[in-house]
Order: sequence, then structure tokens, then C-alpha cells
Amino acid sequence: MTGETADRVAIRELVDAYARCADRRDADGQKTLFTQDTHFVVYMDGDGSEPTQELDGREALSPVFDNLNTYETTTHFNGQSTIALEGVRATGESYCLAHHLYTAGGERKLMVASLRYHDTFVKLDGAWLFAERRLVVDWTETRASLP
Amino acid sequence: MTGETADRVAIRELVDAYARCADRRDADGQKTLFTQDTHFVVYMDGDGSEPTQELDGREALSPVFDNLNTYETTTHFNGQSTIALEGVRATGESYCLAHHLYTAGGERKLMVASLRYHDTFVKLDGAWLFAERRLVVDWTETRASLP
Amino acid sequence: MTGETADRVAIRELVDAYARCADRRDADGQKTLFTQDTHFVVYMDGDGSEPTQELDGREALSPVFDNLNTYETTTHFNGQSTIALEGVRATGESYCLAHHLYTAGGERKLMVASLRYHDTFVKLDGAWLFAERRLVVDWTETRASLP
Repeated sequence: MTGETADRVAIRELVDAYARCADRRDADGQKTLFTQDTHFVVYMDGDGSEPTQELDGREALSPVFDNLNTYETTTHFNGQSTIALEGVRATGESYCLAHHLYTAGGERKLMVASLRYHDTFVKLDGAWLFAERRLVVDWTETRASLP
Repeated sequence: MTGETADRVAIRELVDAYARCADRRDADGQKTLFTQDTHFVVYMDGDGSEPTQELDGREALSPVFDNLNTYETTTHFNGQSTIALEGVRATGESYCLAHHLYTAGGERKLMVASLRYHDTFVKLDGAWLFAERRLVVDWTETRASLP
Repeated sequence: MTGETADRVAIRELVDAYARCADRRDADGQKTLFTQDTHFVVYMDGDGSEPTQELDGREALSPVFDNLNTYETTTHFNGQSTIALEGVRATGESYCLAHHLYTAGGERKLMVASLRYHDTFVKLDGAWLFAERRLVVDWTETRASLP
């Protein structure tokens, strides 16, 4: 497996590794998926809204990943990824249904966030990394949840 | 990337482009994914039921795509695609959880449709298009929804 | 399409064939996806818990697949698959949101199980099969459901 095929597989594996690290609470592993000077932007109010959070450098990502510990379980369920390659750079859009299970007032709750990640990827020393993640929250839903 | 690998990537990109055009309300873009004489069939009552809608030619698709404007937000979340290639033709099954957010009686509602697309693809002038989409609605769920 | 690319496509097709056979109630087809001496383990209580079910040999899988007949409709919706190849063996993790629709007390219910499959694959006579499936149930949700 070489060239564009290998690059596409590696980029999709990067997107999926982010989800796995999030769900397994591997914040250190999650940070290594980003370039040192990465740019991470959150749009909580959907497409075309103002950024609600903007972080520079991968060390700044720690609070984002630590925040996952407020949930008992999360499932970052990935759907389609569309990737456009340009040599050692690439851009992409990835769909994710992020499920967050927690307890509030003695009641089990499930918060689902419907996300699209607009990513810029870069290949450094043979490994694809996130140079930028722009996270668009299209909608969320929070509901009481019984097993 | 050549041959079968390139064809598989292109067909999956076609399936994902349909979802993106739907969610971004790009009806013109969505129509260009179909052959001129495309066949679009909807089975609202699941597998093996009678068609509830049957459209011929891509111009006939406009009302289907316009209907998405009745929702505030949609998320066509794609799961697995199984593709069988035969030269410049291919068939496939693709799973999609289509989420539709709207307001009724002052209440936010979420309608989820669990879909399977049975597609016939054709390669014309180097581009893969939908020659036929048979859309099976396995089930829907409509619920009051809080962010 | 040759080598690693063909193997990756075949393994993903195996994972998706399992879902399709489950949803179409093709128990015989589903069994042929496994090696004769396959090992199937269920962890109903999530990651790191004790196995709640352990089955040896593909004939032992019949009750698992028959159990799907207690539901009116199921949708095994597959997300990301991460695959590590080592010649004619491979391991992988696959996410699945398994939706189960049924009626209880005259009420339509939907049970969603958020699953991760930890698989060992083996290539026998040119075909990839499940040598082992370890099914981790991260969480379930059961709710009354209206169309």
C-alpha cells in the first residue's frame, strides 16, 4: 500500500485514533495526534457562527481532553470522512456522533453532540497529524436515559 | 491510486457528497450526482414493501431535495457502504441515520430515519454517478428533543 | 487492487457482512463468516469487566443469531474500524450502534446498544474470517419510541 492509498488510510486512522483516545481517556495519546503549533477551534453554535473557543498549541488542548472525565462513558462514533489530498497536506470533513453518559440528580443522562470536524492535516516525518481542527457542533440533544 | 481502489474511493465519495449536499441544502450540487435519466425510488414501509415514491430523471428530484428546507438542520450520518464493482457499473448498499431537527407547536423535535440506500452506480466520462437510488426506510423515530 | 489494500477492503467487508446478515436474519450466512473453531466472547458490562458469555465453535453461535428474531427490526449501524494487519492475521476494533425495535405491552420500544468489537481475523483459502470476536457493550439505552 503506497502513495495516495496509504495516505488516505493513515488520515482516516488519525481521525479514528482521536475518537479512541477520547473514549479511553488517553489524553497524552490524544495530544500526540496534533502538531506542536496546532490550532483548535470550536463552533458551539453551528456552521457559520462565531468561534466559542480557540486554542493554540497542543499543550493548550489538555483542558479539552480533561473535560471528558466529567462523563462516565463517552462514545465518539465516526461516520463519513471526506479527504482532499495535496501532497503532504490535506483537508477533510468528518462526521461524528459524540455520546456522553453521566449522572445528574441521581438520574442517568445521555448527551449526544452531532459534530463535524473540519480538519487540516500535515505529514511530518512520515506521520499524518492534525495541523488544525475546526469543530462544528450542529446540534446537541440531552435526555434522561434508561439502560 | 488507480483501478479498483480509485473507483471504490470515488463511489464512497459520491455517497458522502449526497449527504453533504443534503445537509448544506445544495440542491443543485446534489442533482449533479445523478445521471440525467436517473431512477429514484422510495420505500417508506421498509424492505420488500411497495414503493411509495418513484421519480424519473434528475430534474424530478428537486421536490425531494427542496423538502429538506422544512427542517432547521439535518445530519445525514453515513455508516457502512458495501460496493460491488463490475467495470464501469457498480452496485452498493449504504446505511444512513438521517437526523431532522425542526420545531412544531413551539417544541423542538428530532426525527431520525434509519435508511438503507440500494444504489446502482455508473462511470460516465471518468465520474461516478447514481444511475439509480432505491431508498429503504427501515424505521423512523420522532421525539421531543432538548439541547 | 492487491496486497494490503485488498486485505483491508476484505476485512471491512467482513465486518459489514456480519451487520447485514444480522439485520436480514441470515443466520446461516452469518455463521460462514467465522472460522470453525471461532471464539465469541461478550462483555455486557463494558470494558475490563468479566465476560458474560463465551462461546466456542461457530455452531455455538446459532442461539446468539436466533435471538435477533425476538426483534421486529434491527439496524447494526457500523462506524469506524481500525485494522492492524500482520500477514494472514489481523486484529481490529469496530464501533457499532445496534438498534433493536420491538413491541412490549403494546408500546413500541427501541433499544440501542453501543458496541465495540475487538476482533481477530484470519485469512483462510483467500477469504478473511473471524477467528475471534470480543464484543464489548459500552452502554445500552431503552426508550419508548414513536415513528
